[in-house]
Amino acid sequence: MKPILVFQTDFTYKEGAVAAMYGVVKSVDKSLEIIDGTHEIPKFDTWSASYRLNQYIKFWPKGTIFVSVVDPGVGTSRRASVAKTLDGYYIVSPDNGSLTHIKKDMGIKEIREIDENINRLKGKDTEGVNIFHGRDLFAYCGARLASGIISFEEVGPAYSIEEIVEHPIEEALIQDNYVEGIFEISDPNFGNLWTNIKLENFNKAGFSYGDLIHTSVYYGGELKFEEDILFGTSFGEAENGKNIIYNNELMKIALATNMGSFVEKYQLDFGPDWKVVFTK
Amino acid sequence: MKPILVFQTDFTYKEGAVAAMYGVVKSVDKSLEIIDGTHEIPKFDTWSASYRLNQYIKFWPKGTIFVSVVDPGVGTSRRASVAKTLDGYYIVSPDNGSLTHIKKDMGIKEIREIDENINRLKGKDTEGVNIFHGRDLFAYCGARLASGIISFEEVGPAYSIEEIVEHPIEEALIQDNYVEGIFEISDPNFGNLWTNIKLENFNKAGFSYGDLIHTSVYYGGELKFEEDILFGTSFGEAENGKNIIYNNELMKIALATNMGSFVEKYQLDFGPDWKVVFTK
Amino acid sequence: MKPILVFQTDFTYKEGAVAAMYGVVKSVDKSLEIIDGTHEIPKFDTWSASYRLNQYIKFWPKGTIFVSVVDPGVGTSRRASVAKTLDGYYIVSPDNGSLTHIKKDMGIKEIREIDENINRLKGKDTEGVNIFHGRDLFAYCGARLASGIISFEEVGPAYSIEEIVEHPIEEALIQDNYVEGIFEISDPNFGNLWTNIKLENFNKAGFSYGDLIHTSVYYGGELKFEEDILFGTSFGEAENGKNIIYNNELMKIALATNMGSFVEKYQLDFGPDWKVVFTK
Repeated sequence: MKPILVFQTDFTYKEGAVAAMYGVVKSVDKSLEIIDGTHEIPKFDTWSASYRLNQYIKFWPKGTIFVSVVDPGVGTSRRASVAKTLDGYYIVSPDNGSLTHIKKDMGIKEIREIDENINRLKGKDTEGVNIFHGRDLFAYCGARLASGIISFEEVGPAYSIEEIVEHPIEEALIQDNYVEGIFEISDPNFGNLWTNIKLENFNKAGFSYGDLIHTSVYYGGELKFEEDILFGTSFGEAENGKNIIYNNELMKIALATNMGSFVEKYQLDFGPDWKVVFTK
Repeated sequence: MKPILVFQTDFTYKEGAVAAMYGVVKSVDKSLEIIDGTHEIPKFDTWSASYRLNQYIKFWPKGTIFVSVVDPGVGTSRRASVAKTLDGYYIVSPDNGSLTHIKKDMGIKEIREIDENINRLKGKDTEGVNIFHGRDLFAYCGARLASGIISFEEVGPAYSIEEIVEHPIEEALIQDNYVEGIFEISDPNFGNLWTNIKLENFNKAGFSYGDLIHTSVYYGGELKFEEDILFGTSFGEAENGKNIIYNNELMKIALATNMGSFVEKYQLDFGPDWKVVFTK
Repeated sequence: MKPILVFQTDFTYKEGAVAAMYGVVKSVDKSLEIIDGTHEIPKFDTWSASYRLNQYIKFWPKGTIFVSVVDPGVGTSRRASVAKTLDGYYIVSPDNGSLTHIKKDMGIKEIREIDENINRLKGKDTEGVNIFHGRDLFAYCGARLASGIISFEEVGPAYSIEEIVEHPIEEALIQDNYVEGIFEISDPNFGNLWTNIKLENFNKAGFSYGDLIHTSVYYGGELKFEEDILFGTSFGEAENGKNIIYNNELMKIALATNMGSFVEKYQLDFGPDWKVVFTK
């Protein structure tokens, strides 16, 4: 059984780009299975591309091939690559920061730059197109790899894992009764904010379910939010419209408003400038 | 041939939750087919979850397994269940009102509470997570059922159909030349409003295609809209921008603006407080 | 191996219409593969339906069946048809302008009007519904064709290709050092505007990569934008926030703002009233 191809991009379904990519895959091998990871990564946002991939990759069968195309540098000197993780997943992606979290958390065993002479779509009058590698390079190369037409070695020349482009990752500060971290991403649908603080470290610092925890949020050093918030096991432990600290799906500490949107209610956001401090 | 898994949630594709769920399914059994029902149910809206399921379920092959996750009470005492309908569909869902219309219109033969000891994902460092049953419980259990790893009986203990949580359903009032109902849902894309009045009852009351029907809309008793509107067989019988009463895809009476949005034009909405009255 | 069914509509996933259509397909033949082309064609916009289909069709395997349902005239006298292209694709669609670009660029060999007596869904209490041919006619007929239950001839009676409803298509004016065209569509996600000017004609007029080209945009004759813009091979050749003329994925000239949205920045749009002039 051939590996599944899972796609994530910042293309949306507002026009025909996704359908063009998927057509390329099916023309390489009609039997390949394609699944939408998501096509709603925020535009140009390679941090989110990296984060989302890391959010779901481990739930897939080993050998699954992920095609990730958030590619603001398409047609420039950034590398177009296929990475193989330590435990056997493949990621077809521009090497532009999109591999940051996978490299750190899962580990990359080998990475190869796609050889355009071999693994670029031909014969569809797209040879002169420089701005749609999702279709002409990544989907095509990923499909050939999934189909077994090429081996991983035939993707193109390997290069050093040290050269992979990475975003900086902020680590949380853990002390007795004091934890300082950042909001590293949001849940943009439900309006929750996810910190970079692992549950186990939060517990080590002395915080337990049922505690009322003093919570301060700063942007660029300026206080934006301050409240004593319940650390609960699920949203429903807070009354409707009240805030809650919870353990998110990645075993990290997060903030939500039960039956509401924490992000919208307080106009908060994520990124390295958004600091959150928990004290007793 | 194994049953198809059809998913509906309020997660959207804005982040990686859907991809995580689908990965779980494929790790249970790579051969299972997954289809998006929709991931754009309004947030927390178990009424819409129930309505949408009922809108499309009967068009699917018998035996199809629907996984419906609109779950504001995740991690609280609400039951996580699998229902079997009278005609042989399965619905994997929190028992929180999401089964209302299916129970009433199609009939539920048996319902079982998912046994988390058997049918919850293990080994992926999610044992401590309480807020993503879509991934850890519903997708996993649904996949095991679809794959034949467990029988319906092995989902967990059965409980009485009488205990299923239901939203109240408003019935229309049908008299000679007078029909009173509510807008029970909208078509949020095209901006149409769907009533709870069946075409056959509308006809019995004396209204026929071609009639100009006096239409009044009230919110909480206050008149919000009043007009004589054509009851036509399709949108195009009204001029562009004009309103029309029509028979919707579920054989119920609905209101639209041809080539426009009735909802936006008059700032109307749906719910038990939105009453619509048709008179000759 | 049966042909794939690729769907495009203006339904969105905000409600259950897509799931109802797909259920119909799977009830005809559970083994059929369904792929989303897109369900986000702008409402009622048969021009965009036609354009998007043409944007991606050639990348799919020959024999693929496209079901395109942007159907503001549903239930009126417009024809419901299946077209066969010169190179062997099938398009199931209302004949309402949605076939314009395919007819012009790829060529249509034969077109047949769907015989509702044979190829309309029965037995699901939808016989009285006139406003959802996507479900009751197009999906059902497309599935029967894909499954081999009916041949192309059994779709219904053929009619003359001359009768196909077409939108007018504007041709660009190409002179020495002067090109005049229109914005024929946008990339609504990234905010780029695509002209009707082919790269080869742009080159013939004397414009080459690296040139700074005087660009004027008019709406209804009124100047809306004017700037000397670099003609580059990819977005990244312009600084962030700067504009660029580039060769788009269809080998036509387009305008973008690197790491921004050209459409939003200058409040421009597409259509026959939007003229763009390039001069040296």
